[in-house]
Amino acid sequence: MATISDIAAKLGISKSTVSKALNNATDVSTSMRQRVLETAAEMGYIQRRINKAERKLCILIENMDYETPNQFGYDIVKGFRQMAEAEGWIVEIVPLTKEFQKLTPYGVFMLDHSYQASFVLGFSLLDPWMQDFKSSQIPTVLYDNYIKSNPYIASVGCDSQEGMELAVKHLTQLGHKRIGLISGPLDSYILKARYHAYLNALEKYGLEVNEDYIGLGYYVAESTRTYIPKLLEQNVTAILFSHDVRALSAMTECNDRGIQIPRDLSIIGFDDLPMTAYTTPPLTTSRQDRTGLGQCGYYAINCLLNGLPIGSILLRAPLIVRGSTGPAPED
Amino acid sequence: MATISDIAAKLGISKSTVSKALNNATDVSTSMRQRVLETAAEMGYIQRRINKAERKLCILIENMDYETPNQFGYDIVKGFRQMAEAEGWIVEIVPLTKEFQKLTPYGVFMLDHSYQASFVLGFSLLDPWMQDFKSSQIPTVLYDNYIKSNPYIASVGCDSQEGMELAVKHLTQLGHKRIGLISGPLDSYILKARYHAYLNALEKYGLEVNEDYIGLGYYVAESTRTYIPKLLEQNVTAILFSHDVRALSAMTECNDRGIQIPRDLSIIGFDDLPMTAYTTPPLTTSRQDRTGLGQCGYYAINCLLNGLPIGSILLRAPLIVRGSTGPAPED
Repeated sequence: MATISDIAAKLGISKSTVSKALNNATDVSTSMRQRVLETAAEMGYIQRRINKAERKLCILIENMDYETPNQFGYDIVKGFRQMAEAEGWIVEIVPLTKEFQKLTPYGVFMLDHSYQASFVLGFSLLDPWMQDFKSSQIPTVLYDNYIKSNPYIASVGCDSQEGMELAVKHLTQLGHKRIGLISGPLDSYILKARYHAYLNALEKYGLEVNEDYIGLGYYVAESTRTYIPKLLEQNVTAILFSHDVRALSAMTECNDRGIQIPRDLSIIGFDDLPMTAYTTPPLTTSRQDRTGLGQCGYYAINCLLNGLPIGSILLRAPLIVRGSTGPAPED
Repeated sequence: MATISDIAAKLGISKSTVSKALNNATDVSTSMRQRVLETAAEMGYIQRRINKAERKLCILIENMDYETPNQFGYDIVKGFRQMAEAEGWIVEIVPLTKEFQKLTPYGVFMLDHSYQASFVLGFSLLDPWMQDFKSSQIPTVLYDNYIKSNPYIASVGCDSQEGMELAVKHLTQLGHKRIGLISGPLDSYILKARYHAYLNALEKYGLEVNEDYIGLGYYVAESTRTYIPKLLEQNVTAILFSHDVRALSAMTECNDRGIQIPRDLSIIGFDDLPMTAYTTPPLTTSRQDRTGLGQCGYYAINCLLNGLPIGSILLRAPLIVRGSTGPAPED
């Protein structure tokens, strides 16, 4: 672990200048402060605050809404804060962009704001900091992402494989044989995982794997509009969706086209957002216990801060059977 | 969830008799008590104690020593008790046999002793209660075992895949090309997992997979004596062991045969038992943070008791490089 002396020696400046720069003192120039932060981050310097009032964690969010109870991230943030704040942490929520990540290395950002650890939500594989996480020594917990072999980084999420298997099993029991998938693009760790889980589950239940049963697209409404008719042309009788919001969009699309759910088509979401219990029909979906995910996220951070190298915590994704799935229509 | 009334109705007896039987009252016959316990267990009845002084958990142990600090289970039990007892639980340690499990269903045993949850160590796939866990509704956490799709059962363990990959990577960097495995038999979930992890790791690093490089046997000393010469005949230059105790036994065997470690043969254990730092040479091994595993075991039980369906918690298994690995001998 690099010390303030190491940073001073490397830059050929005094320890007090390093210390002032790290503590954001006014008599250090901005450019000097930037050099110190970058060197400190590169050397793996970790700031240990003695003043408990300044114990700070951050939740870094991209590609995820979290401000109202019906939005996916809301309960995750809530569960995390409940646990962390009860133990005296200040928790700051930081929405991010890829552009910001490109300009500022992760280590510099964390030092600059005196965050001791972070909980990362909604990152895709294309986010620049995903590269930084491979070698970072800052305790970091990723929701629905995984970094191999770095003991400072942990993961929390739901078991996609089990979730998909339970969904396919349920449909099989209802007589479905041609089961499709409509998902976001595979530039995300978790969507890749769910895509492979879907293929594995079909194989496990001896069902046909056919790429014409699969529709991948970034924009929710647009890809629903494209793929619902395409999959129905292939005589698909049931569709799995990578997220509830996509399944809900499919309900609207089917309604517009006079396709009755579940009589003509069964659909299953993933997430169990609060509103899915109240749609017409109510949505069958794989539950992600989001409050629990937030709580586990904090538990994992706490373990990492105490030197216990948690790699992953996976929750079950039980199937909540509601009205959007029914017997397969006769051929 | 079955209630006392449900049990009474099923057996055609009064609620008070059921209640007395469950509470071990003296005015209920042993045979009636047994019938009540069996029915209650079958129906998934869960006892909820109001009296906090009676909050009881158990650690069920088979095939694992835990009584002294150098034994594998010692720190796991310690880590678990530290957490559980701090939160007011009474923790009882129950060594088990397969014969006992055959005679008493898991649910009956738990009700009979008023245990609200259990932490299960050292079970093989042949243990009769492994079947009971598939449908049990009692919060249960398994170390190094996994039960699919039952949200009342969680798992904790170390990441065998990552551990084996790090070990094989280290040996590859030292120039080894023929890497063997000596392991216990594959009637255990975790030894199966490590066996496949070994095969995957060899494949990943483009090394030869050869069944003559593998030795599986129940008895440690006997299988070491058999397989060390067999693997050396195959010009294996490094051997991975499923447990430190097997690697230590190999050290003795090699010493007896005048084989020098690591000059003639590199060896790597799995576990990082305390004594492995002090052997001659000190053992390179994959670390299992056993105190942490016990702590995570309690965390998982606490989640299950609060209805959060944890599926698994995996710790990293970092490679601790010591003196038992060195450059591959020249061909």
